[in-house]
Amino acid sequence: MMKGNLLISSMIERAERFFPKKEVISRTSSGIHRFTYKDIGKRTRQLASRLKEFGIERGDRVGTLAWNHHRHLELYFAVPSIGSVLHTINIRLSPEHIIYIINHAEDELIFVDEDVFPLIEAVHDKLKTVKAYVVMTDNELPDTKVNHVYSYEEWIAAGDEAFQYPQDIEETDAAGMCFTSATTGNPKGVVYTHRSTVLHSMGLAFADTVAASESDIVMPVVPMFHVNAWGMPYVATWLGANQVMPGPRFTPEVLAQLIQDEKVTMTAGVPTIWLGLLKELETNDYVTDSLRAVVCGGSAAPLSMIKTFEKKYNVPFLHAYGMTETSPLATVSRLKSYQEDLSEEDRFDIRAKQGLLVPGLDMKVMSGQGEVKWDGEEMGELLLRGPWIADDYFKDERGEETFIDGWLHTGDVCTVDEEGVIKIVDRTKDLIKSGGEWISSVDLENALMAHEAVFEASVVSIPDPEWQERPVACVVTKEGHEDLSKDEILEFLKPQFAKWWLPDDVIFMEEIPKTSVGKFLKRSLRDKVKEHYELA
Amino acid sequence: MMKGNLLISSMIERAERFFPKKEVISRTSSGIHRFTYKDIGKRTRQLASRLKEFGIERGDRVGTLAWNHHRHLELYFAVPSIGSVLHTINIRLSPEHIIYIINHAEDELIFVDEDVFPLIEAVHDKLKTVKAYVVMTDNELPDTKVNHVYSYEEWIAAGDEAFQYPQDIEETDAAGMCFTSATTGNPKGVVYTHRSTVLHSMGLAFADTVAASESDIVMPVVPMFHVNAWGMPYVATWLGANQVMPGPRFTPEVLAQLIQDEKVTMTAGVPTIWLGLLKELETNDYVTDSLRAVVCGGSAAPLSMIKTFEKKYNVPFLHAYGMTETSPLATVSRLKSYQEDLSEEDRFDIRAKQGLLVPGLDMKVMSGQGEVKWDGEEMGELLLRGPWIADDYFKDERGEETFIDGWLHTGDVCTVDEEGVIKIVDRTKDLIKSGGEWISSVDLENALMAHEAVFEASVVSIPDPEWQERPVACVVTKEGHEDLSKDEILEFLKPQFAKWWLPDDVIFMEEIPKTSVGKFLKRSLRDKVKEHYELA
Repeated sequence: MMKGNLLISSMIERAERFFPKKEVISRTSSGIHRFTYKDIGKRTRQLASRLKEFGIERGDRVGTLAWNHHRHLELYFAVPSIGSVLHTINIRLSPEHIIYIINHAEDELIFVDEDVFPLIEAVHDKLKTVKAYVVMTDNELPDTKVNHVYSYEEWIAAGDEAFQYPQDIEETDAAGMCFTSATTGNPKGVVYTHRSTVLHSMGLAFADTVAASESDIVMPVVPMFHVNAWGMPYVATWLGANQVMPGPRFTPEVLAQLIQDEKVTMTAGVPTIWLGLLKELETNDYVTDSLRAVVCGGSAAPLSMIKTFEKKYNVPFLHAYGMTETSPLATVSRLKSYQEDLSEEDRFDIRAKQGLLVPGLDMKVMSGQGEVKWDGEEMGELLLRGPWIADDYFKDERGEETFIDGWLHTGDVCTVDEEGVIKIVDRTKDLIKSGGEWISSVDLENALMAHEAVFEASVVSIPDPEWQERPVACVVTKEGHEDLSKDEILEFLKPQFAKWWLPDDVIFMEEIPKTSVGKFLKRSLRDKVKEHYELA
Repeated sequence: MMKGNLLISSMIERAERFFPKKEVISRTSSGIHRFTYKDIGKRTRQLASRLKEFGIERGDRVGTLAWNHHRHLELYFAVPSIGSVLHTINIRLSPEHIIYIINHAEDELIFVDEDVFPLIEAVHDKLKTVKAYVVMTDNELPDTKVNHVYSYEEWIAAGDEAFQYPQDIEETDAAGMCFTSATTGNPKGVVYTHRSTVLHSMGLAFADTVAASESDIVMPVVPMFHVNAWGMPYVATWLGANQVMPGPRFTPEVLAQLIQDEKVTMTAGVPTIWLGLLKELETNDYVTDSLRAVVCGGSAAPLSMIKTFEKKYNVPFLHAYGMTETSPLATVSRLKSYQEDLSEEDRFDIRAKQGLLVPGLDMKVMSGQGEVKWDGEEMGELLLRGPWIADDYFKDERGEETFIDGWLHTGDVCTVDEEGVIKIVDRTKDLIKSGGEWISSVDLENALMAHEAVFEASVVSIPDPEWQERPVACVVTKEGHEDLSKDEILEFLKPQFAKWWLPDDVIFMEEIPKTSVGKFLKRSLRDKVKEHYELA
């Protein structure tokens, strides 16, 4: 058999050849713009030729600080297709972390959105390897004291539309790079390869997983600076699906409007995004019947949210699980064919779990006593391996704690039911250890968020002299429900949990602190809770 | 990223772990038998352990001469999973060719169906490398003078159900082997690898191709000795789909009954099989509404057949194209989303073509003047490359004529329309060259088979002093239509073709000669036509 190197350039070339009329709909600061894959293909070749001319070599890192839009998509393909490495930088990181990761990755060139450029202005004199900045804007270049600043459109205009991508790249060569935040210390870099990116795209295209298709209109809401927007832009381009890029600083209203206007069929994001969208759908009327899959990952989707999407809005919800180290797609929650006969409640219970391992990967779940029983009860850490799972962090000794004996130790604690469906119960470090037993903060959170007066809720532990740790619930009420009381909440939880699982206290807050990608930030929340008790 | 070797053992292990209750329904000489993947998994491990004990080493070839059934499925996984190579032998080949390919492949051990065993008895003294024969039977071993003959069930019973598959196999190691007949001389061997087999399975699992799924009940009618039954048993097992194995010497009645009784959702075979099935459906009543895809390849499916399936029986038809050298899936004919708005006739016309290149492969179509225009008219030879395309024949110098500069030269002549959809117009050698122009025998055949009185038809060339070659039609009428005349046929074709395309003659026959896998055998047909004129 031919080797048939699995290269990212082959994905954009497929879109150009077979789907030149299909579209990328891009929202920028100046409005909605429409590009065909024929356009995107030419612009990507222009960009690639300019990168070469600039002196970007095989293996060199090229950074981006950008929202989801067509120019970022062009970078997704042009940078790896010449053999260099696309380093997508999270624009919400602290300046210190941004300086660290750019220097650590040794980025040679940075592409930055106009509205993110002030961030570069604040840190540029600390960046050791960057030779130039290309600003992605529909307008004039910003007035700046930073040197070597170019305008994206002018820069690529001089490029060659007929540029040919090199074919001698190895599929195991680095193609992309993304940093994930660590509990302590600097973010850790994960390097993707051409092989991992193409195989991961196949993982998204299976009928039994996300079933991405040419017939889809895909809107990646998850940022392109976060694990390649879960690979959505890669698979959508490859299959010739239309894409809707929501652009900078979108609101729930913008998303709802795009879903309606562009007849979006598939969208992907974290639960907090979908909580916001639901709020918008409850406030204003939109047509959302084009949606065939709201893909949700990043943290556990509350069952109540899944039910609201499906029962109130008739929008199919697809719960998935993964992390930066897993490209990210690792599991997808779909029913097996014979589970379709279960009661509605049972079906929702299964679909609220993280789901079945995607074909192509391997898993095991380890407690201190070895592999856990598949009984839906025994808890253990999820270990993963496979062709789109990382095997190390980029130049970082902390890899030794995570990648052991050929397995990624996810740091996520889960159960596995009799059908092999996994349910994440907590991060190893967020599990509450009470009297020698474990309490899942995620289970309590999901139950709390099912209360009609609760907008969002998070549960953390507080130290306890007798029980070691005890749970405390932090609750944000919905508008108009500010009179919700601690007792009402505990009464609501009582029938659902063993008595010793019930939180010792309920703290009402204006907002739960979140990470730069919209997950609950338990570290800050613990500080907030501590402060609350010190003030009290 | 981890390498994550793509191994065939991981596919059966997925079925065992996640789908132990799903079933393989196997028709053997003693009736219908049902096995769960838990059973199949254990039996496959037993078989693998016995192969090792017998002394089968990495790279050794193990032959099969067998129909589609559960034991053949166990061999599909056990043999490659210990690092050896599954050589599936076409039971319909001539004894001379069977002797040649077994000796050429150097098979060490042969698994043979009870009813095919007489074939071994006839040739065994010419086989140079075979150490033993394992007979797959539900009954007693046949009485024979052949030495070293074992019974499959007894043989595996001594095996280890907990046998662990080796993990140090490379994905590029050989896994399977299949011979394809040549125009002249001995059959040519194609060797599949673990990588090509797993990636090809992914190709079948995409929502945009065959969309194989856990929810399917897959019945491979295409023989397991023919290009791995088009990879169906691999992908179906991997995804945990139920499988229906139609067993030995099935008839159209058997197939129709299995579709009805087992609620088959997907089946795959060559056009002649589906012509036979249609005849059965027209004669007797069956419930076929479980079918969501009749996959058809091997040769072009006549438009009339596609329409009958879809309009008369409401059974979706999926036209595909490939060959032994392409694993085989190369193209699938599905509409692009914006083609759904076309008229019914236009949609059928597109779907009767061979379709779009499967994601992961690359193609070009070359005439003497370079790449052809994508205008649906210009004809050229289809060239393919990619990770499940062969790069040589097994120890055979004839590979030099077929694998050139990294491309497989398929020997198939096609057009490509504006949308990139290919239509095979002929084998290079079957094209009729008349007066310096080309006439497609396939186009004429499809038109002929759309006549209500025609059961099957094939077109070949006869030498012509003036025009070099001229077409002649060979026609088999349907029962009760024996009075169909040459003139009626030519009148029927007239409005559809340029005058010089019309056959010079129509010869009525009882049967069109076919190859061992059910394709029209033009070589024999030409002899028959020649004989017809000599006798006349």
